[in-house]
Amino acid sequence: MSNSFGNLFSVTTFGESHGGSVGAVVDGCPAGLELSKEDIQSELDRRRPGQSDVSTTRDEKDLVKILSGVFKGKTIGTPIGMLVENRDVDSSKYSRFEIRPGHADLTYELKYGFRDFRGGGRSSGRETVGRVCGGAIAKKILDLIDIEIYGHVKKVGRVESNPTYSQIKSFTEENPVRCADPDKAIEMEEEILKTQKMGDSVGGIVEVIVEGIPAGIGEPVYKKLESELARAVMSVGAVKGFEVGAGFKVADMKGSMSNDPIKIINNQIELEGNNSGGVLGGISTGMPVVFRAAIKPTPSINKKQKTINLKEMKDIEIEIEGRHDPCICPRVVPVLESMAAIVITDLSMQAGKLPLDKIQKE
Amino acid sequence: MSNSFGNLFSVTTFGESHGGSVGAVVDGCPAGLELSKEDIQSELDRRRPGQSDVSTTRDEKDLVKILSGVFKGKTIGTPIGMLVENRDVDSSKYSRFEIRPGHADLTYELKYGFRDFRGGGRSSGRETVGRVCGGAIAKKILDLIDIEIYGHVKKVGRVESNPTYSQIKSFTEENPVRCADPDKAIEMEEEILKTQKMGDSVGGIVEVIVEGIPAGIGEPVYKKLESELARAVMSVGAVKGFEVGAGFKVADMKGSMSNDPIKIINNQIELEGNNSGGVLGGISTGMPVVFRAAIKPTPSINKKQKTINLKEMKDIEIEIEGRHDPCICPRVVPVLESMAAIVITDLSMQAGKLPLDKIQKE
Amino acid sequence: MSNSFGNLFSVTTFGESHGGSVGAVVDGCPAGLELSKEDIQSELDRRRPGQSDVSTTRDEKDLVKILSGVFKGKTIGTPIGMLVENRDVDSSKYSRFEIRPGHADLTYELKYGFRDFRGGGRSSGRETVGRVCGGAIAKKILDLIDIEIYGHVKKVGRVESNPTYSQIKSFTEENPVRCADPDKAIEMEEEILKTQKMGDSVGGIVEVIVEGIPAGIGEPVYKKLESELARAVMSVGAVKGFEVGAGFKVADMKGSMSNDPIKIINNQIELEGNNSGGVLGGISTGMPVVFRAAIKPTPSINKKQKTINLKEMKDIEIEIEGRHDPCICPRVVPVLESMAAIVITDLSMQAGKLPLDKIQKE
Amino acid sequence: MSNSFGNLFSVTTFGESHGGSVGAVVDGCPAGLELSKEDIQSELDRRRPGQSDVSTTRDEKDLVKILSGVFKGKTIGTPIGMLVENRDVDSSKYSRFEIRPGHADLTYELKYGFRDFRGGGRSSGRETVGRVCGGAIAKKILDLIDIEIYGHVKKVGRVESNPTYSQIKSFTEENPVRCADPDKAIEMEEEILKTQKMGDSVGGIVEVIVEGIPAGIGEPVYKKLESELARAVMSVGAVKGFEVGAGFKVADMKGSMSNDPIKIINNQIELEGNNSGGVLGGISTGMPVVFRAAIKPTPSINKKQKTINLKEMKDIEIEIEGRHDPCICPRVVPVLESMAAIVITDLSMQAGKLPLDKIQKE
Repeated sequence: MSNSFGNLFSVTTFGESHGGSVGAVVDGCPAGLELSKEDIQSELDRRRPGQSDVSTTRDEKDLVKILSGVFKGKTIGTPIGMLVENRDVDSSKYSRFEIRPGHADLTYELKYGFRDFRGGGRSSGRETVGRVCGGAIAKKILDLIDIEIYGHVKKVGRVESNPTYSQIKSFTEENPVRCADPDKAIEMEEEILKTQKMGDSVGGIVEVIVEGIPAGIGEPVYKKLESELARAVMSVGAVKGFEVGAGFKVADMKGSMSNDPIKIINNQIELEGNNSGGVLGGISTGMPVVFRAAIKPTPSINKKQKTINLKEMKDIEIEIEGRHDPCICPRVVPVLESMAAIVITDLSMQAGKLPLDKIQKE
Repeated sequence: MSNSFGNLFSVTTFGESHGGSVGAVVDGCPAGLELSKEDIQSELDRRRPGQSDVSTTRDEKDLVKILSGVFKGKTIGTPIGMLVENRDVDSSKYSRFEIRPGHADLTYELKYGFRDFRGGGRSSGRETVGRVCGGAIAKKILDLIDIEIYGHVKKVGRVESNPTYSQIKSFTEENPVRCADPDKAIEMEEEILKTQKMGDSVGGIVEVIVEGIPAGIGEPVYKKLESELARAVMSVGAVKGFEVGAGFKVADMKGSMSNDPIKIINNQIELEGNNSGGVLGGISTGMPVVFRAAIKPTPSINKKQKTINLKEMKDIEIEIEGRHDPCICPRVVPVLESMAAIVITDLSMQAGKLPLDKIQKE
Repeated sequence: MSNSFGNLFSVTTFGESHGGSVGAVVDGCPAGLELSKEDIQSELDRRRPGQSDVSTTRDEKDLVKILSGVFKGKTIGTPIGMLVENRDVDSSKYSRFEIRPGHADLTYELKYGFRDFRGGGRSSGRETVGRVCGGAIAKKILDLIDIEIYGHVKKVGRVESNPTYSQIKSFTEENPVRCADPDKAIEMEEEILKTQKMGDSVGGIVEVIVEGIPAGIGEPVYKKLESELARAVMSVGAVKGFEVGAGFKVADMKGSMSNDPIKIINNQIELEGNNSGGVLGGISTGMPVVFRAAIKPTPSINKKQKTINLKEMKDIEIEIEGRHDPCICPRVVPVLESMAAIVITDLSMQAGKLPLDKIQKE
Repeated sequence: MSNSFGNLFSVTTFGESHGGSVGAVVDGCPAGLELSKEDIQSELDRRRPGQSDVSTTRDEKDLVKILSGVFKGKTIGTPIGMLVENRDVDSSKYSRFEIRPGHADLTYELKYGFRDFRGGGRSSGRETVGRVCGGAIAKKILDLIDIEIYGHVKKVGRVESNPTYSQIKSFTEENPVRCADPDKAIEMEEEILKTQKMGDSVGGIVEVIVEGIPAGIGEPVYKKLESELARAVMSVGAVKGFEVGAGFKVADMKGSMSNDPIKIINNQIELEGNNSGGVLGGISTGMPVVFRAAIKPTPSINKKQKTINLKEMKDIEIEIEGRHDPCICPRVVPVLESMAAIVITDLSMQAGKLPLDKIQKE
């Protein structure tokens, strides 16, 4: 079941980039939760292509249809089917055997021997529509206990931002790059547009912060919170690295520096600093959970690249046409938030931390 | 089942650091595989404490006993139980409510309300004995198709090595730090001993290389090879980051640089460079799989630290006694190799890439 | 993930009886398999309501739409989404709090506190549309190795048939009751119509035979072939019992009678008799797998029944209107065949018994 | 993971009949539960061989050792390893290629190609030691909410009992057959001893009743309570049939008879009759859950049987020596109770019906 994610709360997705539709089935949502199409649409709108000058020109409205699991505006505990049709499809630029470097063309062809090569098929970023559908529902559940999830673009190429939590919450959605620092947002946008003009693409780092998460979430030893987050995040195309808290910086640290001191403040346990990133031993501490993902540059670029024709087994050069994001980071933000929401909902249920019986059903 | 890992090939582990024993049950090993106690013991010896001057002085021989699943020196397709007794236990230095910073004391106490606090209990690195038992068997299976896994310590504090593949294979096991570059090995050892003398500990980076892996392993979209590796690696205590191929460096890259060009050499498909780290779209390309893990400094240090007494809910200072590794990286190497072996065995089975019917049974 | 079934080959279903649609997502189908809408439709037609005088008058054409996973008439190894719209819906006869005896009204209300009560919602037999979609694909896979699955109605009320294998294959689909014995078929039809005239319903037994199954399928000890079949069959609404081979008759037997003697015929291993029902120790023997399911009478009857109004917590009497099958057995046949096909496909994959690499991809 | 059973509460078992030991690892037991070796031993004693004149003469004390997961007499939320050594082993009577009819010799050999043939190896009933270890812990958890599970031998050959609930609770453990009706107990014992004298064995039916189960347990549609129970029960060797409530009797019934009327008694919802067996639509109703399993006669008998020598591929006759139960039903009782306890604990956790936070931890 490699197209399903989660145990008690799970998301199964389906659909190819240039097929008729993409969609998701969410299983394990408790009954009685208010859920409207708009709850899902607003998250899809954050992900959809064509939303700004730094995203692809493919223009998909990505209107979601709820197929099941909701009755009179509330969930009923049964699977929630959701469907988004593909509309603005142009498959004319794709060729099955001219392998695009950095894409999954090569590996899908070698693994499956037959594939829908149009727009990358199932390996396209379009597959994340289903994740965002699932994440939107997970966020509604987490709202019940005031867990909030904020993603932002921390880095694009060499432009890096170091915003405060307050900036992350207030400014991220105000600019097309989803950078939380107003000055850096402009620099990032320039960097992206400049790169695009060169026919190239650029990578970056997306950071996600989970606030309000109670202590006790995460199941040792193989379903640690950070382990499940890593799996979720690394399952998103284009992600090449994951870190939590101080992340790779711990390699340079001494224990006396990396350990977060613990203290009592107003009879509450608090950690000074957050090198641990909100987790110790796989279990949430009660501090915000902070993680980052390394996003590679979009592999589709308007430059000549060396590759092969797989059928003829010979070297060729290609220049990729089609419509692509010069930097995918801004659109990855809602996807990583979604994956975090799905993981945390699932593990919260397992830990008995969601007060599901308090949902007002009538 | 948070103490089990894997689907077709799975490892279930149990045991606390200062309990009677630790162990593992491996399920899904094919029948007819030659397997001796020595196959497992040799891997455990690489992990065991007290093996050198840079590891803890706890002296455990970690002798493994095979409980089931092997008959006349061969596996029989049934679960393989393995047991390692805890011998050199000194629980006198542990106190339940004096929470050690950087350890899981706080979160286990908050989650479970009752715990075996001696030596960290289940959250101790001693839990990884079971992983190495499982990994040893996975390695035997991967031997059948010449997949080989090499880990080495790439970095300790600020000392970083950039060894060749050939060095990694030949020199890593020749020095106590498991550094593949002879010169850097000495520097790392000095760094560790110096840190220890200061009563402190130091972090690092462990890199793992998988050679011989065929194309086609990994199941999109949620069981991508890199995603399962990330989950496996991040489930190991002390790991705060994971990256594959170019990893976090992709953030700074342009697409024209990060895409690995593809070409035909001697009628074989090859990628120039390995920014992709052996995976595209979640599926192995046939190039070596390369990943790295960020390892935090051992949280147990011989310095005063600010923390709390959880029962009295008041601030205290502690200085941790007991026996600890000043740098855990060298002993993490076989653990990460084991996790990689388990993941790859499991996904290879699912992909139908293990020629299990070719095992010589008589 | 209680709405998903299967591991390597899995089916996730969704949809309520009177919602907009019902559907399924099949994950794990190998690439390159020819698959058309007709392959699925022909199975749905066997299940659909209104197909004969012994089924409900709800008239659903149950036209299936393939949403994903198929390209140019072949599967591509990605999830296959399928959708069937609900058309002939009449929800006027349903009331939330007047609990229908023998249905899941009571338990859904107690468990979920809020539900789609129209037509039984998710607990309706209409949910099995998704199972049949999944089963149709599983049957296509099993065709590859000549595994064939035949269900028939063995018993209705007190009318019992004892057909030969040859009758089961040739006559079952020739009559509305799906009885394999021509004479008994007429008796069963009379029994059903007589019962219906009395405003009542009647139960029965459905038997399924799997031919061509090779030895070696089934995973001891908790994923035995008979155990997975039992789970699959008992998950279908209205099923109250499951047995394999001699089934409950073994209670009266002596070992000398129940053991199937083994012999060599033309250098092939054969069992005389099939009390074992094609399985020993959870693994297929190579003989046909034979199992039976006890099907309860449709709980909806046109007679006064004692029940409660759950909101007012008082005793009432109800007489159920709406459209219902007087005997559900004929329509259960394709559903049980589907569940058998899903189980056997999944376990065959795990046992490496499907020659998936032999699918002609071009 | 075919040797693991359960999701949130799971049992992994290992061990062969004539290997060094058999055992289990229980994962998901909440922390703070009082658990002693005796809690497990008392259940093992009910299962152990040699306990009476109607069981095998193999004399195993089956003394259990707890390896992990318990500290100061209480569970700590970590996996509980348990080990039982095999002591009274006599492997002299077993031959690898002389296939015993009715046993799994044939299928294990065909599936695995290599096996521990001594005493049936993993396919032996001795494997159920691990199930009973797991069930003993599950029963301790269910005690917390007063769920009680009673098994009894309902039928042996043609001797059938119809005891009252009160007899089941009070008399079952008072006689070696575990029959709840005192008169029938004597008849059954005679039947077994007579059969044994003839060198034969006899089958039967075991019934299990679960009292105190609250409404709302079971997850539609594929994890229905009856479906998970069927899977659990049919995974036990020798079981050829499963039924819940009226079971196979529903085939003869009319809906007006099989529907259990519902009424309010003292402001409580009750069902008159229990044809439904405590489940509707896969969810518990609050009535006792009642199920039955058909147990085949022990395949090992002291009579000549026709079979094959698999190596020489020729017909032979064998007469099985070794020590065997003439009727396995009495010893199956604690095994089926254990499987029921494991299923109900797991599904109760998923349904949020276990008040785990009320366990007194200090």
